[in-house]
Amino acid sequence: MAVYTEVDDDDLNAFLKNYAIGEAVAFKGIAEGVENSNFLLETTTGRFILTIYEKRVNAADLPYFMGVMDELAHAGFPAPQPVRGTNGEALQELLGRPAAIVTFLKGMSPRKPTADQCRQIGAAMARLHLALGESELNRENSLSISSWSDLFEGRESVAAGLAPNLASLIEGDLERLHAQWPNPKDVPNGIIHADLFPDNAFFLGEHFSGVIDFYFACNDMLAYDVAIAINAWCFEGRGEFNLTKGRALLAGYASERTFTPAEVKALPALIHGAAMRFFLTRLVDWTDTPADALVRPKNPLEYAEKLGFHRLAHSVEDYGYAP
Amino acid sequence: MAVYTEVDDDDLNAFLKNYAIGEAVAFKGIAEGVENSNFLLETTTGRFILTIYEKRVNAADLPYFMGVMDELAHAGFPAPQPVRGTNGEALQELLGRPAAIVTFLKGMSPRKPTADQCRQIGAAMARLHLALGESELNRENSLSISSWSDLFEGRESVAAGLAPNLASLIEGDLERLHAQWPNPKDVPNGIIHADLFPDNAFFLGEHFSGVIDFYFACNDMLAYDVAIAINAWCFEGRGEFNLTKGRALLAGYASERTFTPAEVKALPALIHGAAMRFFLTRLVDWTDTPADALVRPKNPLEYAEKLGFHRLAHSVEDYGYAP
Repeated sequence: MAVYTEVDDDDLNAFLKNYAIGEAVAFKGIAEGVENSNFLLETTTGRFILTIYEKRVNAADLPYFMGVMDELAHAGFPAPQPVRGTNGEALQELLGRPAAIVTFLKGMSPRKPTADQCRQIGAAMARLHLALGESELNRENSLSISSWSDLFEGRESVAAGLAPNLASLIEGDLERLHAQWPNPKDVPNGIIHADLFPDNAFFLGEHFSGVIDFYFACNDMLAYDVAIAINAWCFEGRGEFNLTKGRALLAGYASERTFTPAEVKALPALIHGAAMRFFLTRLVDWTDTPADALVRPKNPLEYAEKLGFHRLAHSVEDYGYAP
Repeated sequence: MAVYTEVDDDDLNAFLKNYAIGEAVAFKGIAEGVENSNFLLETTTGRFILTIYEKRVNAADLPYFMGVMDELAHAGFPAPQPVRGTNGEALQELLGRPAAIVTFLKGMSPRKPTADQCRQIGAAMARLHLALGESELNRENSLSISSWSDLFEGRESVAAGLAPNLASLIEGDLERLHAQWPNPKDVPNGIIHADLFPDNAFFLGEHFSGVIDFYFACNDMLAYDVAIAINAWCFEGRGEFNLTKGRALLAGYASERTFTPAEVKALPALIHGAAMRFFLTRLVDWTDTPADALVRPKNPLEYAEKLGFHRLAHSVEDYGYAP
């Protein structure tokens, strides 16, 4: 959570001349997102989020992210819709950085999701996959299994410092994952959110109201998105899997899109792998974030503990899957 | 700018049971204020700012700040109005800290105020003083001239490192200020904002729309508030005084409340002293803020440069005062 780029009233008023959304009446930097600077913008015509894309985001990927949000909005899926400038483009420039305005979405992120919220997010994810089913947008997953060994290399001693034997356990996990990883051609692929944590989901009262933050979206196996959500939504405390929530999330997804037999078979490895991906990127941030950074890195131990559960899981039923 | 205390949806929903303002529909930490944690809260009935008061604020002062905002709102002055809980109190508790909800104010803070905005803020400040003229609230200014020598003590070498001779210049300023300081009994006193920087003023288009952040408010000489604003609004670049803006601010104030002859005489020393107060507190923050703090301290040099102007100013006309 941070605002990296300060935008003053003159900068903003000049920027808004690129749009036909009226004049600014309120503008506040918000503590949301760790990669970019986000501002709540109210104009005479409505409310929006203005994002300035900072250096960690590859500018070449931005048209893809804009396209995904645009296609979702057109399909009626509740996601922020990019607002086009009067030149027809959603991507503009502010203070020398790429910037965009998207519509404001109401809702609150659950800190401790209930089983019913897990069911709803499962169903919402399936609708998101289906809404993007015909898309021609394409972006490779830069954090897929092929990147993991490189992420771990040189950080073995940091892992060893986090928990006894963790370095060798991770080595073992990586071997097992490479051996068990499904062939992507055997399962449905498409556009996935790839970061659908509770932080990025909104509910109004008890009801799902939308998904935000599409800046890890990519093309990959659809079931891998489910695997990420299982890790993000269905654990308690220290690596304790809540089977009721797992059942709810998987059943919610299946209520909107039926898993193929190959997907069901692949799920345990995908869930284990999804935990590995977040463990490794947190390990990298943990090692590389300077002490005076505006954002405190998340402790990788949370995901090391989830890996501990996955190491002992044997079947998709261990995650609550029921045909 | 920072959010020091994280509030999750469960915490918030429980907290809102203390109020009759409906259910939360959006909640975002905002990068505003350096002392407290602030959140933009939208409920089914409207928009609000929720503030959690952090350790730097003396909890005993909070009823005074609430009272000031409340009296201003009742007088029709555009300031945030504290929302009372169903128990009748504006101050509540959230996560073990004092917390309050105030109404949301539209507007944008000018980064580079125009002369006309200086005129408007002068007039608004006079209306603020008049609106609080009958108040019985009382809080001593803890950063008044009697505190300055103590603030400087032990930090002479830091000052010397900022600019050649700065330490001895400050010593000289303090002597001169003590000699020239008006007797508070000779001038009008009352409740002052004491921190009315452009950050804390809102404009909608070209028009003044409100004042926020009353957490330095106190009882002191009214002209001292004007002196703070002269420093905060009427300088350019490196300690260069913009006489046009000075004229505008003073004339704006005088259009709503006439300065007494004793105030006019006192203004040069008060303006010099106001610069000293902000120089010293910034010097303290500069020295005491740990390198890994969420908030970067402001460089005291800006106010050292303003002190340089004041040292050479001879009369109230040097600040643009015209009878």
